[in-house]
Amino acid sequence: MRYLTDTERGLDPKRVNDAVEAAFADHGRGLVQMPPKTYIILPAGDFRTMPAYLPSQNIAGVKIVNVHPQNPGRGLPTVMALTVILDIATGKPEAVINATPLTDMRTGAAGAIAAKYLSPKKEIVLGLIGTGRQALAQVEATRHTLAVGEVRVWSRNPVHAEKFCAGIHSLDCRSASLEHACDCDVLVTTTPSTRPIIMDAWISEGTHINAIGADAPGKEELDPAILERSSVFVDDPAQAVHSGEINVPIARGIYSEASLAGTLGEVVIGKKGRKHPDEITIFDSTGLAIQDLAIAKIALQQGTAIVLPFP
Amino acid sequence: MRYLTDTERGLDPKRVNDAVEAAFADHGRGLVQMPPKTYIILPAGDFRTMPAYLPSQNIAGVKIVNVHPQNPGRGLPTVMALTVILDIATGKPEAVINATPLTDMRTGAAGAIAAKYLSPKKEIVLGLIGTGRQALAQVEATRHTLAVGEVRVWSRNPVHAEKFCAGIHSLDCRSASLEHACDCDVLVTTTPSTRPIIMDAWISEGTHINAIGADAPGKEELDPAILERSSVFVDDPAQAVHSGEINVPIARGIYSEASLAGTLGEVVIGKKGRKHPDEITIFDSTGLAIQDLAIAKIALQQGTAIVLPFP
Repeated sequence: MRYLTDTERGLDPKRVNDAVEAAFADHGRGLVQMPPKTYIILPAGDFRTMPAYLPSQNIAGVKIVNVHPQNPGRGLPTVMALTVILDIATGKPEAVINATPLTDMRTGAAGAIAAKYLSPKKEIVLGLIGTGRQALAQVEATRHTLAVGEVRVWSRNPVHAEKFCAGIHSLDCRSASLEHACDCDVLVTTTPSTRPIIMDAWISEGTHINAIGADAPGKEELDPAILERSSVFVDDPAQAVHSGEINVPIARGIYSEASLAGTLGEVVIGKKGRKHPDEITIFDSTGLAIQDLAIAKIALQQGTAIVLPFP
Repeated sequence: MRYLTDTERGLDPKRVNDAVEAAFADHGRGLVQMPPKTYIILPAGDFRTMPAYLPSQNIAGVKIVNVHPQNPGRGLPTVMALTVILDIATGKPEAVINATPLTDMRTGAAGAIAAKYLSPKKEIVLGLIGTGRQALAQVEATRHTLAVGEVRVWSRNPVHAEKFCAGIHSLDCRSASLEHACDCDVLVTTTPSTRPIIMDAWISEGTHINAIGADAPGKEELDPAILERSSVFVDDPAQAVHSGEINVPIARGIYSEASLAGTLGEVVIGKKGRKHPDEITIFDSTGLAIQDLAIAKIALQQGTAIVLPFP
């Protein structure tokens, strides 16, 4: 068994996008095993356990990932992750991977793939709500699937938006008001908000929205009125109903699972998709264990390895 | 973060029994978080993912354990396990533990506790069906909760039973026929059988049975007629219905969850229990994540540690 760290160094974002896209295609075809992730609530956060098996990529394992919003005050990331990979033939643990940076990348890849299939434009103005690590991962992945002409970034603190843009290379990136950031082709929301911060009036026809932030019960970023006039695609219906952008509107009885337009997997295999250039589309991302396996498959060949005695 | 191995060396079985008993008491009082374990089916076996949080022992984590019956032919154990322990305050992975031997011990402890509370006799003849690692773990744990006067061991191959007894120190242990092994005070079944091998006629009044072997859908060791005239206690109802000794009779409609007498946790806290010395009692064990956390809590102070860079 090996412990692997720094596997993200030099990882090709395009290769990650392709691997995650292939995993979504398998998901769309019903070729994966993936029980919904389970949540354990700790005093100051939670952790999620995400097992899966992706036969076509010959990889199986479990990601374990926490969310502790007060961690930065202790000098630790909010989100930290380990992925345990098992040998398919024998079930023997093959590798334990430091998956914290990989988690950012694989979530970025899902957004990039959703935007590639669901944005009606291929040259886009990208609107970003939130400036954390996930915002950066979304930009870095999406610039490999679409031509990003301009980035409009909103943060509660404009200094954060300016600092964020300073870290983005070779893109026209600027701090913007909420309303101006929403005036875009692809809008990406990555905040931990528990009430809508994106108002219906700000969203124009033809916009594609990647709703990334809501990934636990009670989290919500979009005015539910946007959902009503949109085609909403999810990564996994069971997870989205429990913890995605749609979880609060469903719990409040103002949105229904039956209204969903489909899954990203179905979009990737061409079974579902955008029907009209003026349609508003939403990708509600909760994060799938198969994304973690797809990136782990690449990461296994990278990074620093420490050999561990087992069994 | 640390990787820990050999943590079972010098582990005090009495201390393990006590920690596992305390975990069952918390379970009986509803003080733990533990979603039912999930199963992923691989071509030649499966793996189970078991997250939990045990607030009273201040420990949280996930055990990942496979079952691959053909592994011994490849020089690997059938069952191998890793436990990942997370820091309660920050969610940071604290330790990865080689939990293969710990899995045997914590399952043995559950049987030992069930026998302690449910056997009407405190000096017992112990009947063993099966002679694998789990059979040994059951004997080693149970001799710390009850006085074991004699051990009657059945194996499909009597040579295995004799070899097994040769490995048991300071106990009167002998190979026996199935019927003679069943003529005992505490009967422990640890086979991977998928059809009943213990017949109703062989079980006398007052016997306590630890049904350990059935831990996946389709597995079954006891004639369902025994269940009908017994009080059946489970570790966790959801897991037992899915994968315990009762799973096949329930699937066939000849046993019902409503017939269960209670959980081992309820027995430990005195809420449920044996009502009469002549009653037959059964403990249907599937294995709980809180048992793994209870033993991990002790194991964290033992063994060989390798420091791993994280995050």
